[in-house]
Amino acid sequence: MDEAPLRPMNSSPRKPQVLKGFRDYLPRSMLLRQRIMTTFREIFERHGFEPIDTPALEYLEILTGKAGENEKLMYHFVDQGGREIGLRYDLTVPLARVVAMHQNDLVLPFKRYHIAPVWRAEKPQRGRYREFWQCDADIVGSATMLADAEIVGIMAEALAAVGLGNAVIHINHRQLLEAMARVAGVDKSRSGTLFRTIDKLGKVGAEAVTRELTDNGISSEAAERILALVSLQGTPSELISDVSERLREDDSAISALAELGELFGYLEAMDLPPARFAFDLALARGLDYYTGPVYEAVVEEPKIGSVAGAGRYDGLIGTFLGRSIPATGMSLGVERIVEVVEEFGLLSTPGSVADVFVAVFPDTIAAAMEIARELRETGINVDIGLQPKRGVGDQLKYADRRGIPIAIIAGSAEIARGSVAIKELKTGEQRDFLITELATGVSEMLAQVEPSAS
Amino acid sequence: MDEAPLRPMNSSPRKPQVLKGFRDYLPRSMLLRQRIMTTFREIFERHGFEPIDTPALEYLEILTGKAGENEKLMYHFVDQGGREIGLRYDLTVPLARVVAMHQNDLVLPFKRYHIAPVWRAEKPQRGRYREFWQCDADIVGSATMLADAEIVGIMAEALAAVGLGNAVIHINHRQLLEAMARVAGVDKSRSGTLFRTIDKLGKVGAEAVTRELTDNGISSEAAERILALVSLQGTPSELISDVSERLREDDSAISALAELGELFGYLEAMDLPPARFAFDLALARGLDYYTGPVYEAVVEEPKIGSVAGAGRYDGLIGTFLGRSIPATGMSLGVERIVEVVEEFGLLSTPGSVADVFVAVFPDTIAAAMEIARELRETGINVDIGLQPKRGVGDQLKYADRRGIPIAIIAGSAEIARGSVAIKELKTGEQRDFLITELATGVSEMLAQVEPSAS
Repeated sequence: MDEAPLRPMNSSPRKPQVLKGFRDYLPRSMLLRQRIMTTFREIFERHGFEPIDTPALEYLEILTGKAGENEKLMYHFVDQGGREIGLRYDLTVPLARVVAMHQNDLVLPFKRYHIAPVWRAEKPQRGRYREFWQCDADIVGSATMLADAEIVGIMAEALAAVGLGNAVIHINHRQLLEAMARVAGVDKSRSGTLFRTIDKLGKVGAEAVTRELTDNGISSEAAERILALVSLQGTPSELISDVSERLREDDSAISALAELGELFGYLEAMDLPPARFAFDLALARGLDYYTGPVYEAVVEEPKIGSVAGAGRYDGLIGTFLGRSIPATGMSLGVERIVEVVEEFGLLSTPGSVADVFVAVFPDTIAAAMEIARELRETGINVDIGLQPKRGVGDQLKYADRRGIPIAIIAGSAEIARGSVAIKELKTGEQRDFLITELATGVSEMLAQVEPSAS
Repeated sequence: MDEAPLRPMNSSPRKPQVLKGFRDYLPRSMLLRQRIMTTFREIFERHGFEPIDTPALEYLEILTGKAGENEKLMYHFVDQGGREIGLRYDLTVPLARVVAMHQNDLVLPFKRYHIAPVWRAEKPQRGRYREFWQCDADIVGSATMLADAEIVGIMAEALAAVGLGNAVIHINHRQLLEAMARVAGVDKSRSGTLFRTIDKLGKVGAEAVTRELTDNGISSEAAERILALVSLQGTPSELISDVSERLREDDSAISALAELGELFGYLEAMDLPPARFAFDLALARGLDYYTGPVYEAVVEEPKIGSVAGAGRYDGLIGTFLGRSIPATGMSLGVERIVEVVEEFGLLSTPGSVADVFVAVFPDTIAAAMEIARELRETGINVDIGLQPKRGVGDQLKYADRRGIPIAIIAGSAEIARGSVAIKELKTGEQRDFLITELATGVSEMLAQVEPSAS
C-alpha cells in the first residue's frame, strides 16, 4: 500500500480514555451489533433497496441550511483549507444532497438504505450517545401509498427478525393532525406545540395533555375538541369512517383519510396481521419535515417503547434542487434495538466468532495447522492456538475465556493413532474421533453445544 | 425512537457538493465494496479473528502522542466542551488504546479485525482520499512466528478471494535491515533514509538507489556493500544460509534469520505455494514502528503493485501501558483493491441488489404483492414496482436501468389463466410459467442470465 507513513506515537504512557458519549465495541458486543445490522441489511436487500454511503464530513452549509439552525447540535470546525465543515448528524440530509448531485446516475423511484454512524454534540444521557448508528431505508420519487406500504411492511419484518415481532406500528397522517388543529380552532403557530403534546397521550394520559395544552395558550374548548378526536379508538376502517364523518368539511382531512384507506388496504393485501398495526390519531412524530403518513413502531410487552419511526416527507429531498420530490422512509432505532435485544436476550449470539479451537503443541504444529485448514475449508471458523509451549489446560482455558465452545486436542499420542480428541469446553465432555472423521465429529459436537445458534 | 428532533433544512436551494478528497458511494460501487469487505470479514472470522469498533473521534492526545507529530495530517478541532479532539487517522492507535483500557475484558493473545473509515487531511491525489477505509487484522500479545505465519496466510487467502491469487508476499525482517546497515557502516541516524531508499530497489534499480544513497551522505563503499546484500536472490532457505554466512558476526541478524527460518517453515506447513511468497532483502515498509518481520503483497501481472502490508511491531501496542506488548498485523489496501478489482473486472458484481422486478398494475396490485412475498420467502431479492399507472414498457425500462436482470409480468389476463410471464430484460426473452411454478421459473431464468454470479 502506498499510504503515507505516519510517525509512531510518542512512547511515554498517556491515560487511555474515550470521549464522553462515545463507546468502544468489544467483540461480544460487536457480534450482536453485526448480527442485527446484517439482518436489517438482508431484509432491505430482499425488498430491492440498494446500499449507498456518503462522507462523514460535509460542508457545513449542506448540513445546516443557510439559517444554520442545527449548528449547536453538530460537530463542526474549520479545516486546514479554511472550509467550514461538519460531521453528518443524520442520513437524510446526505440523501437529499446525493439525489441532487447524482440526478443523472440515479433511477427514480430510488430505493436506498444506508447504515452508518452519525454524530451529535448533545448532552450524553443514559441510552443517548454522541456517536450512534442509524439504519435508514427510504424511497425517493414516489408519491404512491404503495411506497408507504412497502416501508411499513419492511419495518414489521425487520423488527420481527430481531425478536420484536410483537411491535405494533402506529399510523397517523400529518394532514389529519393539521385538520384537527384547524377544526378545533388552534392557531397554526401553535401546531408544533400541539402535536408534540398530544403525541404524549398514550404515555401521560388525557388530563396531563389537557393541562399542558392550556398551559401553552390553547383554549380549554379547543383542547377538549382535539382530545375528543385523538382519543377515538377502533379498527382502521371504523376510525376512517368515523373521522371522515366528523371532518367531512375539511378537504385536506378527507384526502389524508383516503390515503390512509389506500395504505391500510395494501397492508391487508400484504397479509400484515391486523394486530401488528393501528390507526393512532394521537401519533405526531417529532420531526417537523413530515408531510403525510407517519409511523412509529412501539413494543408494549416488555415495556420497551419506540423502536423505529418513519413517515412521508415530500418537501425535504428536493431542498438542493429547489423543487419538491416525494419521499417516504424509515429509521430503525438500531442503538435502542441492540440494547433491548441484549437486555431481554432476544437473539442468541455466540461468545466468539470461532466455533472451534485447535490446541497446538511443539511437536504437532504442522498437524494442527492441517486440521485447522481442513475445517476452515468446510466453512467452520477455527481459531488455532498460538501458545504451543503452554500446557493443554492453559490452552483450553484461553479458548473457554474467549467463548469458543469446543476444542480439538491433537497431541503426538493422538496423531500417532490417527485420531483427535474433541472437547466441549463448558461441560468438559470429551470424545475421540478418527482424523478422517474430523469434520463430522466437529459438527456433531457443535450441534450438541449450540442447539439454538443460528 | 426518542432522538431529539432536528430542524428541517432551510428551503432555499444550495449547491450540492462534497468536499475534495471525499466520495459518495452509489449503489453499484457500494455493492462491489460490500462484496469485497464481506469477503475479508468472513476470512478473518474463519481464522478466529474477532470484530471490534472504536469511535471516529478521540482525544487529540491519544492520537498524537505528546509530541504531536501527526497533527498536520489529522482533522482536529476543539469541541463545544473545550476538548481538543481529532478524527482517527488509522486503526492501530485505537487498538493500542483499546488494549490498555480494556485489559481485564480482553483475553491475550487477542486476535481482532477492524474494518472502518479513517480520515487524513492530506492533499488529495489520484487514488488517494481524505476519507478511506482500512481493513486491519492484528494479533496482540503473541511473540511467536506462528502468529506471523497466520497473518501471512490470511493475507494470501484474502487476496486470492478477490481475484488477486497471484500476489506475491515479500518478506523481510527489520532487525536484518538494521544489521545490514551496521555491517555496511551506515550511521544509525541515517537508517530511516537508508531503508526508504533501498525499499525502491525493485522499482528504480540499483543505479538510482546508489545515487540516492550517496546523495544522502552515505559513502559509496557502504552503499555498495548494502546493495550487494539486498540484491541477493534465491529461495528462502538458500538466502537464509547465504546471509547467515555473510552476517555471522551479528547476533541480531542471526536471531532475525532464525525467526524467518521458523516462519518459512510454518508457511510450508500451511501449504502456502512457494510462488506466493519470497524472501526480499530490500523490503523495508514505510512505517517506523515495525520491529520484526515485515510483509508486503505485490501484484506484478497486471502491473498493480502493492495491495497489502503487514509486519510485527512490538513497541506500539504497549504505549498506553508503559510496557512492551508484542503484536503483528496486516492492513489490506482495501481502496486500492476495490479500484483494481473494478478496473480488471476480477469479480462479477450485479447491477442491483434485486434479482427480480415485479411489475404492478392497478387491478393486480394484491397479486403482485403476493408474488413478491412468496419469492422473498425463498430468499430471492425482489423489487416491486411503484408505478402501477405506468405501462409495462415503462416499468420494464425502469427495472433494466436499475440493472435488475429479470421481470415478472402479472397482468389481469395472465392472473386469470393462473400464469405469469417472466422476461429476461437484456435479451427480451419471455416465457410463461404457472403461478404455482413461480419460484422454479425464476430460478431457471436467473440461472441462464447470471451464470457467473456468485
